Amino acid sequence: MQQIRKAACIGAGVIGAGWVARLLYNGIDVAVCDPDPQARRKVEAVCANADRAMKRLTTAPALDPGSLTITRTINDAVQDSGLVVEAVPERLDIKRSVYAKIEAAASSDTLIASSTSGILPSELQADMRHPHRLLVAHPFNPVYLLPLVELVGGKETSPDTIERAREFYTSIGMRPLHIKKEIEAFVADRFLEAVWREALWLVKDGIASTEEIDDAIRFGFGLRWAQMGLFETYRIAGGEAGMEHFLEQFGPCLKWPWTKLMDVPELDDELVALIAGQSDAQSGKYSIRDLERIRDDNLVAIIRALKETGWGAGKTLGDYERKLLESGTARSREHGISSLPLTLERLVPGDLESPMAEAFCLQCFADAREVFLRDSGVGQENGSLAGHFAAAETRIRHVEEISAAESVSVTTHLVSVNSEAVRLFHRLERQQGGLLATCEHLLVHVDAATGATSQPAPHVLDKLNAIAKTHARHSRPHAADQPEG
Amino acid sequence: MQQIRKAACIGAGVIGAGWVARLLYNGIDVAVCDPDPQARRKVEAVCANADRAMKRLTTAPALDPGSLTITRTINDAVQDSGLVVEAVPERLDIKRSVYAKIEAAASSDTLIASSTSGILPSELQADMRHPHRLLVAHPFNPVYLLPLVELVGGKETSPDTIERAREFYTSIGMRPLHIKKEIEAFVADRFLEAVWREALWLVKDGIASTEEIDDAIRFGFGLRWAQMGLFETYRIAGGEAGMEHFLEQFGPCLKWPWTKLMDVPELDDELVALIAGQSDAQSGKYSIRDLERIRDDNLVAIIRALKETGWGAGKTLGDYERKLLESGTARSREHGISSLPLTLERLVPGDLESPMAEAFCLQCFADAREVFLRDSGVGQENGSLAGHFAAAETRIRHVEEISAAESVSVTTHLVSVNSEAVRLFHRLERQQGGLLATCEHLLVHVDAATGATSQPAPHVLDKLNAIAKTHARHSRPHAADQPEG
Repeated sequence: MQQIRKAACIGAGVIGAGWVARLLYNGIDVAVCDPDPQARRKVEAVCANADRAMKRLTTAPALDPGSLTITRTINDAVQDSGLVVEAVPERLDIKRSVYAKIEAAASSDTLIASSTSGILPSELQADMRHPHRLLVAHPFNPVYLLPLVELVGGKETSPDTIERAREFYTSIGMRPLHIKKEIEAFVADRFLEAVWREALWLVKDGIASTEEIDDAIRFGFGLRWAQMGLFETYRIAGGEAGMEHFLEQFGPCLKWPWTKLMDVPELDDELVALIAGQSDAQSGKYSIRDLERIRDDNLVAIIRALKETGWGAGKTLGDYERKLLESGTARSREHGISSLPLTLERLVPGDLESPMAEAFCLQCFADAREVFLRDSGVGQENGSLAGHFAAAETRIRHVEEISAAESVSVTTHLVSVNSEAVRLFHRLERQQGGLLATCEHLLVHVDAATGATSQPAPHVLDKLNAIAKTHARHSRPHAADQPEG
Repeated sequence: MQQIRKAACIGAGVIGAGWVARLLYNGIDVAVCDPDPQARRKVEAVCANADRAMKRLTTAPALDPGSLTITRTINDAVQDSGLVVEAVPERLDIKRSVYAKIEAAASSDTLIASSTSGILPSELQADMRHPHRLLVAHPFNPVYLLPLVELVGGKETSPDTIERAREFYTSIGMRPLHIKKEIEAFVADRFLEAVWREALWLVKDGIASTEEIDDAIRFGFGLRWAQMGLFETYRIAGGEAGMEHFLEQFGPCLKWPWTKLMDVPELDDELVALIAGQSDAQSGKYSIRDLERIRDDNLVAIIRALKETGWGAGKTLGDYERKLLESGTARSREHGISSLPLTLERLVPGDLESPMAEAFCLQCFADAREVFLRDSGVGQENGSLAGHFAAAETRIRHVEEISAAESVSVTTHLVSVNSEAVRLFHRLERQQGGLLATCEHLLVHVDAATGATSQPAPHVLDKLNAIAKTHARHSRPHAADQPEG
């Protein structure tokens, strides 16, 4: 597939702006067209959130971010774009008129991806000149963090369009799910809509408040659904007898009056006021901006936790990071030949208790070491090597207390190299200045085959010696920086 | 409330056994009555899973576990029980006959808690002699990990019963949610049932397979629902205009054909075979036991991640840990006067990459240090102190590589104490023997008011000196254990 270097986004609401943030982060230039005079400010606010979240999510080297332009017309936006994202209101007439304007300016093989939550792609593409390149690519808020994107083709959509889209969305860290038959609301939103309708009844009938409903979700099955879905969860519930047993056991419930669905309450002023009032009581103590950050921090923590277990959205993150690492276009983190390499930038999590602060520190140093080895071409990712470097000793000195939510960075000094060991010295500093902690790593080389300590290959030593030579221009770590002998 | 020291569990399927595991972990003796001759084996298997999960979930000191007995009759099981958990099949006639047997032997104020997923408590209690003490306490699988328990009273249930239940379930680490009006399926299961019905249609109509449906959940809204529910999530989606704006924007969708609900497909042989076959293709490579462990590891990681952000199920865990710490009944971890204190037992997570192994190590040592200080009466939890000890230096020496999923423990040696610093030496060892890593901690005392280094109070020094004296019977750390000077 030809790489997409420029995209257009028509419509910059919550979903459009979320797409823009994800595209820019992946090094793609984006032109945005939205009639709102505040469009730039709003998009930039979402991008700031995304940047904050991505710094917490991953240590993989970020690409050079794409550039953002705001255009007056759709025509200006779609020029030279390999992808046009449509994120305008959910009205078929509006969407069709937007496609007409897009087609007037875009080349015939430009992908056109609608963010619609439920309108059939066959209806969207009905009046198009080149309908084969239209598909639905339905994301989930926040678009810059949640991996799922549902891909749905219409009657005229070509298989090649689906395939190009699948490759593209994977390349920007997403988990495309191709829905093979088109139906209204596709798959995920059918579930959301079912739950939403049921929830409206529960509030209207005074069974539960908005807060109680949220608690019924997030303290129970919501935790399960962050990692396994409905069927895998129920397969386990069936126990050793498995899925058939589960179906036999729970089949009869289908006859019971356990939902109110399809029968939908009128969303009249009274119900709207009831819901809005309960929601204020529940969440009104936070601004929307606060809630966004709480949500993002929680999602980052959950996805990182799943990366540790190698499962679901965490596995998607791991695959994406490997791709970034392999990418030849990854921005060098070298600050110029005269500086020590900046091996890490990170935000300290909020709500940091003392033993957590210490673990955060060590994680920074361990990650910085991996980044340094990787960027030096001798890390574990550099596949052909006959072994890897592992820490034999780690000495951390805490200089100042780390505060929650501050920005920190690590520089790494390659102090010495010989056939026995490699000695690194890291400094963790506030980005606004101020040494927080130092770490000395004594690394030994471990043979891939035997798992025993071994000598690194000569070309590995050569590479490291060359780096040590440039680092020698910097003063060796001060005695004050070093742990007492 | 009088503390519950003994409980009975009638029925030991997946839910019953999950309850037993949670109760035992919380130091409550449990008598189980189940006609299955394999009941003990099955309950013990669930308890082993629970034990494994809890060791990963928390470092708070565990209580002495309760004792498990299997009884032949309900009568034997409920003797002297403050709580009777009913977890028998979902048939009103069976449940009513069980209550009659329970009431014949239990005292009139024994709580009787049904695990039913949806039968009304008023119907359950209709024939009871003392119906005021019956309530529904509906948990979610795995019961030993998920905090939610829905509490529902019937017409005859006394407010005092609900209040006692709320206190009790909170005390065993759960998040009770009192549903104030009784309806079939209560709250959470109405959503599960709605999603389940919709999912059956999607599979039957060939829109999506079981695996695709699971992916549509766990890569998207499932991640959101692990931390915020439906309404708080949508409040954010409304943006700065808030909930009313969201309702206006999405109200019209209610008229669209976005679900198939209430109209339920016949769960005939063909549909059962289709679902079971797809589920085998999706998850058949794992045994049910594998899936349980994967699920538990993921849930532990998610709940721990949310503890870091101080939100939702993570906040519930934090509150529970504080309660365990404050509890006077917490088991001393001292191995007898002649041993060094065992400060930590933990399972290494599966799928452990090299920098993660290192972070795991440091976390063990940091946690062991906190446990040591806490058990010595000079930790941060020991409220009245005028300061706390913080690590100034940490020296870790890695001796052997840690393998995923092995059991490890830490012993802590208080090497020296003076008014300037406290020196601890920890050994991380395989529980089957073998030194993995050592850590030397140099701790300084930090004044609570000023944040500056300060001298500990004389009574703090006295406590530590007394411990150092008993530890002096042990040889000081070998030179071989110590990081090179």
